Amino acid sequence: MTVGKEEKLILVTNDDGLYAAGLRTLLEVIEEFGKVVLISTMESMSGMSQALTVKTPLRVKLLEENEKHRIYACNGTPTDSIKLAVNQLLERTPDWVVSGINHGANASVSVLYSGTMAAALEGCLYGIDSVGFSLNDFSPTADFSVCKKYIRIVMKHLANHPLPKGICLNVNIPSVPKEEIKGMKICRQAKGNWKEEFEKRKDPMGKTYYWLTGLFQNHEPDAIDTDEWALTNKYVSIVPVSVDMTAHEYISDLKKWFRK
Amino acid sequence: MTVGKEEKLILVTNDDGLYAAGLRTLLEVIEEFGKVVLISTMESMSGMSQALTVKTPLRVKLLEENEKHRIYACNGTPTDSIKLAVNQLLERTPDWVVSGINHGANASVSVLYSGTMAAALEGCLYGIDSVGFSLNDFSPTADFSVCKKYIRIVMKHLANHPLPKGICLNVNIPSVPKEEIKGMKICRQAKGNWKEEFEKRKDPMGKTYYWLTGLFQNHEPDAIDTDEWALTNKYVSIVPVSVDMTAHEYISDLKKWFRK
Repeated sequence: MTVGKEEKLILVTNDDGLYAAGLRTLLEVIEEFGKVVLISTMESMSGMSQALTVKTPLRVKLLEENEKHRIYACNGTPTDSIKLAVNQLLERTPDWVVSGINHGANASVSVLYSGTMAAALEGCLYGIDSVGFSLNDFSPTADFSVCKKYIRIVMKHLANHPLPKGICLNVNIPSVPKEEIKGMKICRQAKGNWKEEFEKRKDPMGKTYYWLTGLFQNHEPDAIDTDEWALTNKYVSIVPVSVDMTAHEYISDLKKWFRK
Repeated sequence: MTVGKEEKLILVTNDDGLYAAGLRTLLEVIEEFGKVVLISTMESMSGMSQALTVKTPLRVKLLEENEKHRIYACNGTPTDSIKLAVNQLLERTPDWVVSGINHGANASVSVLYSGTMAAALEGCLYGIDSVGFSLNDFSPTADFSVCKKYIRIVMKHLANHPLPKGICLNVNIPSVPKEEIKGMKICRQAKGNWKEEFEKRKDPMGKTYYWLTGLFQNHEPDAIDTDEWALTNKYVSIVPVSVDMTAHEYISDLKKWFRK
């Protein structure tokens, strides 16, 4: 694969592994915009957040190369994959980092746990325009074709409106037939959390173990400017996400109290 | 251990494992404030961010119990530990979640990768007042005694000023002799990223592997309101951290462009 000077170089990853249907749909659409380097793991890395691999070495293997893309397998987290690609594998800094399409929504506080969005945040930390796409359907056989139109719209937008430093996009697509989608909405992250998070079981030796599970609670189901509301009401949600986690609005209160 | 109605129940964890010196110092100080349930892993979980364990079951073992504390070992990430404790192990919702003291600073964008801060964020998602403490010294033999005074100040503050929903505190302590610390500063997260992130090596079979490494780059070394500046200048930094990652300041621009 050669990347022309005028061509975009696009780094693609996900957290559901190389054989996920969502990743294959993303690759198909994103190749319309430039040359693609895809890097992901053989197995799923869901819920890895922005985890780094520090205790074991990372390995990378070139699996496939043609005139449109190169595909690497890596044994690290989505964040490791982005770091490794940008630092060691790419011919130059990519123009975009695109992650997904995740099997399952990454709305509300899921952004904190998501490997898909961590990859976008990692791209963003390198100063690269980055987006994560997710479909609100966890099943391995989900129909991702509904996503294509919205990926094209978002990437065309990005081509004309580069993102400010430190901001990436979190795009969630409802899992409904194409014709039922009402449009796209710019949103904020809904307030919420997870409850009833474990299933307690006994192993064959009679010892207790726990499986992580859980139900999402939306703390503000009536707020119409959130990503959760958009998804529930069949809109594609777009949330601008910041790598700056400072609660700026609370700084002046804290300053008042800590001034002895 | 019995927890009186008027007593605080405090959940403590870290990401350096049960035998880390920082955790032992934290336990010693935090017991002055109430009854403590400590849960952590046998091994270090550094750089795990807010990762969840979804593919393997979680196990928990009660290691020690006396009138002041209970100590559990868990095989999950710091985030798993907090979830498991709150959902399955504690007699009631704890009053505080306190994480650390981390071996190494968690200033600037390290908050995104930090297991220590992920535990505080997780507590915060449950509506519990939560703090992460870190000492700017990676060595296993770091002197944590300098931290005690500042942990007491922060926890006394918290006892009088509960945090707003969705906000926790990230406290970083410079690694200098007590008498050189100039005070405490309320800060924002410095803008920065990591560069030169890998060491490429050959294994005995001649195959390439990579170790994650890297140097932190502060993008705004002259800004005096950041956590990086505070640490460099021998102040304890306190950053209020939000679970809301929305870049609110960019929503109106996006709305303008996406209104066709």
